[in-house]
Amino acid sequence: MQLKRLEQQMLFIREIDHLKGVLRRSYLLAGERNENSAEHSWHVATMALLLSEYADQSIDLMRVIKMLLIHDIVEIDAGDTFVYDQEASVEQADRERCAADRIFGLLPKDQEDEFRALWNEFEEASTPSAIFAKSLDRMIPIMHNFYTNGKSWKEHGVRKQQVIDMNKRILQGSKRLWEYALLLIEEAEEKGYFQEDIRERG
Amino acid sequence: MQLKRLEQQMLFIREIDHLKGVLRRSYLLAGERNENSAEHSWHVATMALLLSEYADQSIDLMRVIKMLLIHDIVEIDAGDTFVYDQEASVEQADRERCAADRIFGLLPKDQEDEFRALWNEFEEASTPSAIFAKSLDRMIPIMHNFYTNGKSWKEHGVRKQQVIDMNKRILQGSKRLWEYALLLIEEAEEKGYFQEDIRERG
Repeated sequence: MQLKRLEQQMLFIREIDHLKGVLRRSYLLAGERNENSAEHSWHVATMALLLSEYADQSIDLMRVIKMLLIHDIVEIDAGDTFVYDQEASVEQADRERCAADRIFGLLPKDQEDEFRALWNEFEEASTPSAIFAKSLDRMIPIMHNFYTNGKSWKEHGVRKQQVIDMNKRILQGSKRLWEYALLLIEEAEEKGYFQEDIRERG
Repeated sequence: MQLKRLEQQMLFIREIDHLKGVLRRSYLLAGERNENSAEHSWHVATMALLLSEYADQSIDLMRVIKMLLIHDIVEIDAGDTFVYDQEASVEQADRERCAADRIFGLLPKDQEDEFRALWNEFEEASTPSAIFAKSLDRMIPIMHNFYTNGKSWKEHGVRKQQVIDMNKRILQGSKRLWEYALLLIEEAEEKGYFQEDIRERG
């Protein structure tokens, strides 16, 4: 048996186990702990199986699933950045590119190229499939926040307008899902989950 | 916007968040805690993207991924059963069927039927795709045990022959992966990760 190729693949498979230790700001719906990026990746990929009918453009579901399965692997080196932390997000892009070099570089060349292309496509939202995958990836934290009484939004003092600004790209992938997100955001405001915007007062 | 269908889908998506709280016997490779079934599902689905070339029969990779994403959802009600606990495994089958009725039953009928069919196909290993998906699902705990110095095998007093008997169905999906598993199992024996079989002594 020629082991080298399989050994490279298995090394990568072991390496990505570390994604289970990367914590996100969002909480499990049962509320007891932060979610990690591996279980998030499973959740959003499974969501894609169910919600592909709401994509406004023609998508390749297999490609959407592949992108969602691997989209956060770079966080093993780069960590998860809170989307509402704009400064960190700039440096994060560099850290994530280095992480992609190292981690995807563990794979045999053909699979490294495939995964790197998938990750680039997702990051650049350069196809309808990537745009839709990003819509789902933005949708799911809104759900997690809403159904944990805004726990993470409250902890980080997030304002309603920030949530709208950060997530309106959901609309690029799916009008229906953005409408649904807006329903949750409006109800979240009524329930007092957002920090009030000082400029809006008085 | 007709909300009923999307509401059903989102209810299911919220329900399956509970899979993140179902603990398996295996440990993370960093060893610090037990793995949960949601992050396991992500890991094995991502593994499928990389190892499909080792399937001995022609498979439908999209179907393999779908099965692996949803194969453990029934554990939300039924819990995870340790594969080496034979008695529990009999009752487990009943519990899992009830769980499938309830949880997949949250979905719109067409998607309930699709997910139920996928889950049945996986459980019954009734197609080359399901057989290969099962091979991967058996392969990954061997890796987790081997690279955590046999932690879970040792805790549960598992013998080498049990591991071989329980996992030899990997061979049905992939000769190459079974050969690789056997290399790990042989080395695990040398390293003393298994309980000695009393009948083999003296």
